Amino acid sequence: MTPANDQAFMQRALALAGRGACNTTPNPSVGCVLVRHGVIVGEGYSQPVGQAHAEVMALREAGAAARGATAYVTLEPCSHYGRTPPCADALIAAGVTRVVAALTDPNPLVAGQGLARLAAAGVAVESGVLRAVALEHHKGFLSRMLRARPWLRIKLAASLDGRVALKDGQSQWITGQAAREDVQRLRARSCAMLTGIGTVLADDPQLTVRLPQPEPWHGRQPLRVVLDSGLRLPTTARLLAQPGVLVVGMRDGPNRVALEAAGAEVLLLPAAGQGRVDLAALLAELGRRGMNEVTVEAGGTLAGALLQAGLVDEVVLYQAPVLLGQGMPMAEFSLDRLADRLVPTVLSRRLVGADERIVLRFTQVDSLCKESP
Amino acid sequence: MTPANDQAFMQRALALAGRGACNTTPNPSVGCVLVRHGVIVGEGYSQPVGQAHAEVMALREAGAAARGATAYVTLEPCSHYGRTPPCADALIAAGVTRVVAALTDPNPLVAGQGLARLAAAGVAVESGVLRAVALEHHKGFLSRMLRARPWLRIKLAASLDGRVALKDGQSQWITGQAAREDVQRLRARSCAMLTGIGTVLADDPQLTVRLPQPEPWHGRQPLRVVLDSGLRLPTTARLLAQPGVLVVGMRDGPNRVALEAAGAEVLLLPAAGQGRVDLAALLAELGRRGMNEVTVEAGGTLAGALLQAGLVDEVVLYQAPVLLGQGMPMAEFSLDRLADRLVPTVLSRRLVGADERIVLRFTQVDSLCKESP
Repeated sequence: MTPANDQAFMQRALALAGRGACNTTPNPSVGCVLVRHGVIVGEGYSQPVGQAHAEVMALREAGAAARGATAYVTLEPCSHYGRTPPCADALIAAGVTRVVAALTDPNPLVAGQGLARLAAAGVAVESGVLRAVALEHHKGFLSRMLRARPWLRIKLAASLDGRVALKDGQSQWITGQAAREDVQRLRARSCAMLTGIGTVLADDPQLTVRLPQPEPWHGRQPLRVVLDSGLRLPTTARLLAQPGVLVVGMRDGPNRVALEAAGAEVLLLPAAGQGRVDLAALLAELGRRGMNEVTVEAGGTLAGALLQAGLVDEVVLYQAPVLLGQGMPMAEFSLDRLADRLVPTVLSRRLVGADERIVLRFTQVDSLCKESP
Repeated sequence: MTPANDQAFMQRALALAGRGACNTTPNPSVGCVLVRHGVIVGEGYSQPVGQAHAEVMALREAGAAARGATAYVTLEPCSHYGRTPPCADALIAAGVTRVVAALTDPNPLVAGQGLARLAAAGVAVESGVLRAVALEHHKGFLSRMLRARPWLRIKLAASLDGRVALKDGQSQWITGQAAREDVQRLRARSCAMLTGIGTVLADDPQLTVRLPQPEPWHGRQPLRVVLDSGLRLPTTARLLAQPGVLVVGMRDGPNRVALEAAGAEVLLLPAAGQGRVDLAALLAELGRRGMNEVTVEAGGTLAGALLQAGLVDEVVLYQAPVLLGQGMPMAEFSLDRLADRLVPTVLSRRLVGADERIVLRFTQVDSLCKESP
């Protein structure tokens, strides 16, 4: 077995991991490939929470052929009893003789225990193959494990002059059909969508996924979170047409009972000055609720507050080649000096229809594993 | 002689035309290649105004070898006595037997007369080879001839959120070194630079070309034009350190004598409502002064007014991958409906250093030749 083969099989495991990406919250979406004598004998990826992990899926497919095989996994096999028994035990029981992981378990409290358990049973273990690709894939889970908050992405759709709407709020549509379909895929892989009450009152969005099924999306809808300090959300909001809405306010109000009757959960969080919900506390709460990746679709006020607070990991900007002139800005934050400007890394640029899709990073994925929780 | 060869020699003529682009105002920068038995025997491009045209330069280089040659010219040879004798006559006298032009003379009053004069002398004539490329190269001259105004380009340097400066005006520098060097090349090929008094008071720019010499730039500075309705330009402005400044106001003021003493020309133009100079009248005046290409480097007020008036042919946007938040917008114009948004054609996108250079077209160059003056 050469390292080049290791990489090829890990690449396959990562591709499989991608298939589960929209369905495993709060679990990571892991991919697993079982290879015996250079031939793939079993493949699997994480099923929705409570169902089989990737390793178990691959072992089921391989059956007796797993004996003497090498397992390629995007994340170190678990060694604890959670909702399912430990995958390390399943691999040992099946007679797998070598396990190659892209990443060790990011949680410092358990890191390496899965591989150690395998090694103790005589299985050859290795990790770090295609680590950078796996970090990128598992960034949401890593963020939650290591920083106790989700990977936070802001999606923006703007004109070349940085406007997300006209002065009177007109914003449908600035970007084209292809970009809007791409946004659906961002929503599908997000555990939660976050917006502000201003956007809900102006646009009445659903923030749900509308994609053809099956694969990569199997119908799971993200939690929809509305920042609504005064609990002003109308019970007629289209958001509430489907369950899974969390309204985050700062003080109780007469509307609370009606919102709860309409199916929303209402959560009150402390303020952090200026009548604004403590955004760091909100992210911590979403982390506690098992949200790995959260995508913000909101106006410039919330986007600006998150950027100014340094809580944004990634911006996905869809930029339409149009000019709007006076209008609503993308992000309302304020700098004293040009030297303080936000300088993200440009991860990628590509055209989606006529619009440019630019991915900006404020957090490098490899820095996640250097931080303490 | 095959059409493929015709295209190759015309491409060479267009490349030569590019060399003169910064130096021939008000003339077009023409390129000429003389080919005999498939071999280039002479090349030339337009020299600064009053000096030799491209055809004459090529004939000088070819000498006796011009007899029986084909001349490739990016623009129909002139047939009139201007500052120099007609090039058509020079080609006939030298014994050139075929003339291939990319474009006929754009001026409808003289179009075709140069080729007709050649044909009458027994020279084979043809036109339209690489016409689209030649239209692009000669767009400034075409605009002035056919619309009686310059090709108007706005240069913008902005953040991804469309800011050209912070709220307090800080703007140096948003884009990187490579983009700023590229702007020097835009200035070099511009007959005039246009700015507003606000930009002068805030940034005190020189708007001159600082490029290594020689070629493609030979030291000619563009006319610098300041829109300054109240004649507020300080005589200490760095713009005035070099001659070639036109101050365009609406009403006479006490400062006029001092500005003229400082070397500026002062021109008063009528207002077009709201205390603003009539921008169409300004462009007509710049056309009368022989300005083929004019580049605007100004703030959002002037850029927005030009865009709203429909006077902008091209925007060259340098977009830095940074976010500035609250600040000065790129273009202050106002739309009632999203459907009215400005939708230019994206001519090109490329990275210049870390910045993206996006060329937007509001005017298609081939439409210039369909318009009447």
